[in-house]
Amino acid sequence: MSSSAEARPLVAVVMAGGAGTRFWPLSRCCRPKQLLPFAGGRSLLAAAVERLAPLVPPERTLVVTSALVADAVREELAGLPRENVLAEPAGRDTAACVGWVAWRLARSSPGSVMIVVPADHVIPDGAALRSALAAAAATAVARGGLVTVGLRAARPETGFGYLELGEAAGGAGGHEVFAVRRFVEKPDRARAEAFVAAGNFRWNSGMFAWTVAAIEAAIRAHLPDLAAALDAMAADAAALGEAEALARHYPQLPRVSVDFGVMEKASPVWAVTADLSWSDVGSWLGLAELLPEQPAGVTMGDVVALDSERCVLVSDGPLVAALGVRDLVVVATRDAVLVVPSDQVQRVKELVEALRARGRDELL
Amino acid sequence: MSSSAEARPLVAVVMAGGAGTRFWPLSRCCRPKQLLPFAGGRSLLAAAVERLAPLVPPERTLVVTSALVADAVREELAGLPRENVLAEPAGRDTAACVGWVAWRLARSSPGSVMIVVPADHVIPDGAALRSALAAAAATAVARGGLVTVGLRAARPETGFGYLELGEAAGGAGGHEVFAVRRFVEKPDRARAEAFVAAGNFRWNSGMFAWTVAAIEAAIRAHLPDLAAALDAMAADAAALGEAEALARHYPQLPRVSVDFGVMEKASPVWAVTADLSWSDVGSWLGLAELLPEQPAGVTMGDVVALDSERCVLVSDGPLVAALGVRDLVVVATRDAVLVVPSDQVQRVKELVEALRARGRDELL
Repeated sequence: MSSSAEARPLVAVVMAGGAGTRFWPLSRCCRPKQLLPFAGGRSLLAAAVERLAPLVPPERTLVVTSALVADAVREELAGLPRENVLAEPAGRDTAACVGWVAWRLARSSPGSVMIVVPADHVIPDGAALRSALAAAAATAVARGGLVTVGLRAARPETGFGYLELGEAAGGAGGHEVFAVRRFVEKPDRARAEAFVAAGNFRWNSGMFAWTVAAIEAAIRAHLPDLAAALDAMAADAAALGEAEALARHYPQLPRVSVDFGVMEKASPVWAVTADLSWSDVGSWLGLAELLPEQPAGVTMGDVVALDSERCVLVSDGPLVAALGVRDLVVVATRDAVLVVPSDQVQRVKELVEALRARGRDELL
Repeated sequence: MSSSAEARPLVAVVMAGGAGTRFWPLSRCCRPKQLLPFAGGRSLLAAAVERLAPLVPPERTLVVTSALVADAVREELAGLPRENVLAEPAGRDTAACVGWVAWRLARSSPGSVMIVVPADHVIPDGAALRSALAAAAATAVARGGLVTVGLRAARPETGFGYLELGEAAGGAGGHEVFAVRRFVEKPDRARAEAFVAAGNFRWNSGMFAWTVAAIEAAIRAHLPDLAAALDAMAADAAALGEAEALARHYPQLPRVSVDFGVMEKASPVWAVTADLSWSDVGSWLGLAELLPEQPAGVTMGDVVALDSERCVLVSDGPLVAALGVRDLVVVATRDAVLVVPSDQVQRVKELVEALRARGRDELL
């Protein structure tokens, strides 16, 4: 309890591995959601890195992404040292991603405190976020164990996971800290309402803090197969170079999320609580939370709409000219145009699969 | 009654002047409807010329079109002598178009019989069309006066004009011939049903036959201002060349249709009757008459549709990927995408006007 976060180097780890098809045709295998210009013309990823910068400078910010998009990410993040963009040869979910970075830091900077955040969230108030993350890092140092950021459950969302809070554990930097009693997967509406009413539930933000030693110990305890593979990869990296080691081991790492594989099993786990406006822009309809409302709904890019309402109209290429449409999503790019009613946007992956089945890989 | 059409040269006049916005964004000022690939991959115009060819060879087929698209028309009709594509400096409706050609022929081939057809109709049975036009030409020679082709009114269409037939006047080439009692503008539904029930009404096909002498006399009688202007233009053409004469006179010619300005006033006017499958493809919905039905409705070009019905999905560029849509028209080109419910396609011109008002001329 004697050391402080300030005394140990903070390292930010931005997880930018997601591919996904929910933003097709704007998102592609080579341009995933986090690279789309959803943050006022900038990418969500660039916004995430810039938001952290006053707390963690670029030289201590690591971005983990897919090898497929690493060059695009380096281009997007021109202010970041190129070597700070870490390219996964294959996506193996977040436990592998976090473990890889922790094992690397255990060699290069074992006293570090890791702050882990997703690349594709929208958080308008950067100062509030940094305050919460600084408190999480301080808690990770002061109390040991793993720390998550629990956000005020402002409404009964069924699209988020929840944390049930246990005993209060004091505060950090103006934030209340609690022991986490349990993690809850996305609930149905009735349970979500009960969580909000109960008061001791928070949204699981997917943002974490821990010391390198703590996460390494937790992975060794709860994901021993992953730990063994990371040990082998580290040994090969020392002997053969990291590229060769990654190619040998990374695609075989166990595929499990850090929430399910580590957080839900570890103890102690602390929640630093915060009240942040926060969105994960899960589908085209989520754009409505980011962009000012137009008479036709939400529009982005070259769009002309007459007598249209409650639509999402996006162009990254040809003009979208809409007339007399309602509750419709239209997304046009140079080579593909999506047209789907608003209440069926979650089915976009069916279209993507149909294109894959037709061999239209150039559009994916 | 002693001469036959065979004894006098037939000249086909294909009127391809229409611009219009009903097929935006596929149609543009430089690529009007008649140049769109609506005839099984070929343009309606090429199909029209080829349909006539067994009756009138290319060297006696004239195509009148806008100067804006004359080069595109010449390219489309590679089998036609270049000089047979006549370019109007400005669109002045069909009386001016017909008069210009008649005045030209009065100098070069005054004994000709003109067969006049629109460029943008769909007529699957070319032999039946040629039979009707040959009968119309024979009637024009045998009886003098102006001849129109009246099509069996197969249903109470409100989108076509009608002819009311008067006295029977024998036959020609297996077709009944009648005196025309009157021309009727597009009727409302009740009148259209009455016309079909009455039996002595035919659709006004917009296809005509007459001798050069007969149409010249009719224009002099009923459109004297046009006749005087055509006289002046012909005199200037002889003195200064046709290009100079056209530039001086054509944009000032009276703007009136041959139906309204001449046919409705002239006498005698004969109708050669025929029973043809015929469509003028007046809007995107008209494509349904041309193309085989798909589960999603009518599709043309690069289209993938899942769980969609009664749509018109057209691509001339980017893939159109539709999911779960009904009664919707989507037309995608390289630089513009139209999205409009089927029951509002007639409003496309509002979009075109909105683009014009925004200075988006590159899209028009």
